[in-house]
Amino acid sequence: MNNPAVAILIGSDSDLEVVCDALVTLEEFSVSYDVCVLSAHRSPQHTVAYVKTMEKKGVQVFIAAAGGAAHLPGIVAAHTVRPVIGLPILTKALGGVDSLYSIVQMPSGVPVATVGINAAKNAGLLAIQILALSDRNFEAKMRLYKRKLTKGVQEKNAVLQKSGWRKYSNT
Amino acid sequence: MNNPAVAILIGSDSDLEVVCDALVTLEEFSVSYDVCVLSAHRSPQHTVAYVKTMEKKGVQVFIAAAGGAAHLPGIVAAHTVRPVIGLPILTKALGGVDSLYSIVQMPSGVPVATVGINAAKNAGLLAIQILALSDRNFEAKMRLYKRKLTKGVQEKNAVLQKSGWRKYSNT
Amino acid sequence: MNNPAVAILIGSDSDLEVVCDALVTLEEFSVSYDVCVLSAHRSPQHTVAYVKTMEKKGVQVFIAAAGGAAHLPGIVAAHTVRPVIGLPILTKALGGVDSLYSIVQMPSGVPVATVGINAAKNAGLLAIQILALSDRNFEAKMRLYKRKLTKGVQEKNAVLQKSGWRKYSNT
Amino acid sequence: MNNPAVAILIGSDSDLEVVCDALVTLEEFSVSYDVCVLSAHRSPQHTVAYVKTMEKKGVQVFIAAAGGAAHLPGIVAAHTVRPVIGLPILTKALGGVDSLYSIVQMPSGVPVATVGINAAKNAGLLAIQILALSDRNFEAKMRLYKRKLTKGVQEKNAVLQKSGWRKYSNT
Amino acid sequence: MNNPAVAILIGSDSDLEVVCDALVTLEEFSVSYDVCVLSAHRSPQHTVAYVKTMEKKGVQVFIAAAGGAAHLPGIVAAHTVRPVIGLPILTKALGGVDSLYSIVQMPSGVPVATVGINAAKNAGLLAIQILALSDRNFEAKMRLYKRKLTKGVQEKNAVLQKSGWRKYSNT
Amino acid sequence: MNNPAVAILIGSDSDLEVVCDALVTLEEFSVSYDVCVLSAHRSPQHTVAYVKTMEKKGVQVFIAAAGGAAHLPGIVAAHTVRPVIGLPILTKALGGVDSLYSIVQMPSGVPVATVGINAAKNAGLLAIQILALSDRNFEAKMRLYKRKLTKGVQEKNAVLQKSGWRKYSNT
Amino acid sequence: MNNPAVAILIGSDSDLEVVCDALVTLEEFSVSYDVCVLSAHRSPQHTVAYVKTMEKKGVQVFIAAAGGAAHLPGIVAAHTVRPVIGLPILTKALGGVDSLYSIVQMPSGVPVATVGINAAKNAGLLAIQILALSDRNFEAKMRLYKRKLTKGVQEKNAVLQKSGWRKYSNT
Amino acid sequence: MNNPAVAILIGSDSDLEVVCDALVTLEEFSVSYDVCVLSAHRSPQHTVAYVKTMEKKGVQVFIAAAGGAAHLPGIVAAHTVRPVIGLPILTKALGGVDSLYSIVQMPSGVPVATVGINAAKNAGLLAIQILALSDRNFEAKMRLYKRKLTKGVQEKNAVLQKSGWRKYSNT
Repeated sequence: MNNPAVAILIGSDSDLEVVCDALVTLEEFSVSYDVCVLSAHRSPQHTVAYVKTMEKKGVQVFIAAAGGAAHLPGIVAAHTVRPVIGLPILTKALGGVDSLYSIVQMPSGVPVATVGINAAKNAGLLAIQILALSDRNFEAKMRLYKRKLTKGVQEKNAVLQKSGWRKYSNT
Repeated sequence: MNNPAVAILIGSDSDLEVVCDALVTLEEFSVSYDVCVLSAHRSPQHTVAYVKTMEKKGVQVFIAAAGGAAHLPGIVAAHTVRPVIGLPILTKALGGVDSLYSIVQMPSGVPVATVGINAAKNAGLLAIQILALSDRNFEAKMRLYKRKLTKGVQEKNAVLQKSGWRKYSNT
Repeated sequence: MNNPAVAILIGSDSDLEVVCDALVTLEEFSVSYDVCVLSAHRSPQHTVAYVKTMEKKGVQVFIAAAGGAAHLPGIVAAHTVRPVIGLPILTKALGGVDSLYSIVQMPSGVPVATVGINAAKNAGLLAIQILALSDRNFEAKMRLYKRKLTKGVQEKNAVLQKSGWRKYSNT
Repeated sequence: MNNPAVAILIGSDSDLEVVCDALVTLEEFSVSYDVCVLSAHRSPQHTVAYVKTMEKKGVQVFIAAAGGAAHLPGIVAAHTVRPVIGLPILTKALGGVDSLYSIVQMPSGVPVATVGINAAKNAGLLAIQILALSDRNFEAKMRLYKRKLTKGVQEKNAVLQKSGWRKYSNT
Repeated sequence: MNNPAVAILIGSDSDLEVVCDALVTLEEFSVSYDVCVLSAHRSPQHTVAYVKTMEKKGVQVFIAAAGGAAHLPGIVAAHTVRPVIGLPILTKALGGVDSLYSIVQMPSGVPVATVGINAAKNAGLLAIQILALSDRNFEAKMRLYKRKLTKGVQEKNAVLQKSGWRKYSNT
Repeated sequence: MNNPAVAILIGSDSDLEVVCDALVTLEEFSVSYDVCVLSAHRSPQHTVAYVKTMEKKGVQVFIAAAGGAAHLPGIVAAHTVRPVIGLPILTKALGGVDSLYSIVQMPSGVPVATVGINAAKNAGLLAIQILALSDRNFEAKMRLYKRKLTKGVQEKNAVLQKSGWRKYSNT
Repeated sequence: MNNPAVAILIGSDSDLEVVCDALVTLEEFSVSYDVCVLSAHRSPQHTVAYVKTMEKKGVQVFIAAAGGAAHLPGIVAAHTVRPVIGLPILTKALGGVDSLYSIVQMPSGVPVATVGINAAKNAGLLAIQILALSDRNFEAKMRLYKRKLTKGVQEKNAVLQKSGWRKYSNT
Repeated sequence: MNNPAVAILIGSDSDLEVVCDALVTLEEFSVSYDVCVLSAHRSPQHTVAYVKTMEKKGVQVFIAAAGGAAHLPGIVAAHTVRPVIGLPILTKALGGVDSLYSIVQMPSGVPVATVGINAAKNAGLLAIQILALSDRNFEAKMRLYKRKLTKGVQEKNAVLQKSGWRKYSNT
């Protein structure tokens, strides 16, 4: 897409498996997006160039996913005035605590809007909530989505009440 | 203010000391805001009522600060489609790790945009970055702010280079 | 059941697998209970309504299970004067430390009686200990249960002594 | 008091400074209680004897406070069928995480109702919530207490709204 | 054995799988021992009785293994003047940090000699090092054991040098 | 002393403030000891030489205190067959968790008997418990010490009962 | 090799599986190296002897890998003036946090250049960066390597752009 | 200095207080250096420009100090082939664990040689050890330094032996 509303940066292509939940969510809301493999450490210049280009092309929100010394979201935030959503990826050794601390503990002046470890869907939803501020269409969809969330819980509960927990937990 | 752009919820008035950095920042950008002491556990109904009222009044972004089992940001997020910024407050026993986990590890469907422990200024800046998407005035101010940030670092460095680190560290 | 003694709230139906240990325990003690899938964030109003209704129906103890930013027990506690038992669910990334902190570190004024991570049986037993204060029948059963616990350890030890540890560890 | 409703055990007299919040709370609700310095490790036999005697005297709820390898609540729970509330004390080295884990992670069969680190008032309130199940007087007081909690938040907010946050934070 | 030198207490028979490394080690040094399943919380009186009986029978060293709120080693230490070795068992949720803190952070006056998480062999070796102080036979065996440890490393290295690391890592 | 029973190694003279509790305890039991400032990293050869010399001189137990990457206890254990007690020192950044892990998580074959963070008195007592196995005099003193511990708790409790907790906590 | 530039010490042969990434990297850069199984605790004298011999033979950089109470890198650093790279190995119980703290938190005067948990390739690359300071050949290769890193990211991105993320994540 | 051997980057001038130990150490070894306040997030372009310029000017080693989401060392490493030493700064909330993880857990391909939290002197010494590989003068000084370290420990021990620990700890 030429003028995407959201740009998603992935530090390593192995993170795509997690990040795809964000992409699916954006598609469900018909949000235009661009997704790119870019590394804060291995391709730093391309990362900076991409952020600047995308900001000029009109990107409203950035999502950056990274694990370990997860610098990607912070580096994006350093080069744009747009809100940056940081998505910490689960790590084998430290469970993603390293990713979380590296993303959320940004210095004063350069915030990153951090979501939970591997919480890619929430990264997508937060981007849409931000876009919805200037797009009534997205806002309406988001209200619908929240009602569906509620309904989903209620439907599960209805099945549980009807079948009993023993039967439910076997399905 | 009658139709503030940002609503700030404080779980305890003892958190005001931290949160005031966010308020000062919003004022510096001339962002209209409303600040309220409200507790997810001690005044849950008022909290929900406040969130709903504020959303109707046109609030664009919520900031919620809380420490310990810091439920306030999540509860706000449960009752609005607006983006919610969560500000974890430093705690005596656990250094704010409890606040951080309680805020950032939200379930799928209900994101909270979490900033660093006690990072109130960044909470304010993130709110402004979001508002700037639909207000060119804020965007211009934010670009200016980022340039000032850069300049601030350069000026400190210039003093350091001129005076030498021994003299600098004594001032 | 129309007037259950215990109400169990599950934040996500995926937690049922853990929680069933509590349900089995309640059944073993012939404690009437009601179990419900309800989310503090996805169906907040139903959660509050359920808590208030159940309190009026005579529920004596609430058990709430949740993982991650586990707000459910705290939200239940905010809306009832009954004792609330919080059951932190094991999480993939953080091993349930996030759930534990989010549940146990409640603010002053609104306690949650927290049991161990995934300790569903203990949640059930704690509920029964509380009910036993006003029901001699439950108290007698609890005394019997504790004797059985002791006997269980002794029997295992007797087998170990008889067979020797090598044989024992192969069975 | 001869037949107290609540028995409070303190592992070390240095913990009294924290625990006194629980005692004050019990007094505010006119709950009869007994408080005792007893150590799971330094006076184990007296601890067991005390628990058994108190249970016979009609104690309904035990509160046990301890820090570090905080075994006291678990040892109380091993010797009574009454609900035991565990209060983890803040520690200098580990911030009370050691106390919390030692108290909350009890084995299956012997629960301890754990409250937050140094959350003595909540330990007292939880005891009263339990007692209130069989004493309408306590229940009424607890409802009143919760309304006061709400009112307290509202009053603070009213002052904040009236004076503005700058003035408020200076007082 | 009637008058064992070492008594090993296991909080749960599921820990036997780990503890057997200690038992094998004791056998390799021909140390007489007694192993028992006993719970600090489920069979507290038997635990205390066992410790006192064993001390009278001449047990020199106790080894106690436990996981979670691992009180067993501390309770043993509370009832004997003999050295007590604490063996923290790996736990699913917290990796054994809970076990470690519960065992090592004992209050002043009642030490537990703690070894690493799941380090059963080291628990056995430490017991033998203590016994060796009054038994030249054990001391000689321990010196031999340490030489074998060194030799074992050297032999592995010799194979590595000869075969090269690629071949070595395939075997 | 020429033939001390216990040798205490201190990684840094700044740890002496903590370690002195161990020394006082040894003196109270009339245990002969030698104390030395020696570093595993800054004076490794002297450390090894000291350990070997002391073992030859008849030292029965080593106590080694260290903070941070606290290698000293492990290095002592590598060079002696005697039991080595490791004392982790509180650190400013990590609260002594670094010291604890570095000391307790020893590899298979080379145990260190670890006590709590800054638990110097317990290090001394553990040494005496070990010495008491071959010295009835120490055993008698240790039994007396444990009775005094119990008595100390009882006396504090007696004062508490007499004066009431309010008066007690003011003294 | 007789005069290797890099010496790699492995605390346990089970760590070879991780360390081989460092060895492969050194070979890719044609760096001469020696690899040895040596234990700080089980073969301390051989370790010291090896370090001293290797330094005399002209080794420029040491790499030491260890897990748990990972003393090996620190012990190497204690006996050489050459830079020592510490490689913390992932541990089952604590995820390698024990290894990391034991390696990185060295006392003042004796640094260890620590890389990430299990980051063997980075240990190798760091060694080569150091060697490159006095060998223009290595420097040229390192510049090439960094360009390849960048190119690798770009190529992955090119495939992602061409195929789309759905197709990409299925391959 | 025009062609310094070492370049030190400080993320915030508040870190200078810690970093000065590195500077003093470099001066003691007569190592030429340049020190600069530069931020990975607030002045990213100047940071990159500085790194590239300094590499061209012949800087051999970079030292970068940062706290929180401490990206500075990683960003330096992304733009140079020279070895980069990362110095994690102690943080108020998390004790520097955030800084440590953000610095040490770098992705494969871009190592940072990490020293301990606030271990500025060790950062300086590591730089000198690296420089000493191509400068016999530095190597000689480093050998002398290590001997002085040893001597320092011995002298402290001598005073301790002479005065006794009671007198020593009072001075």
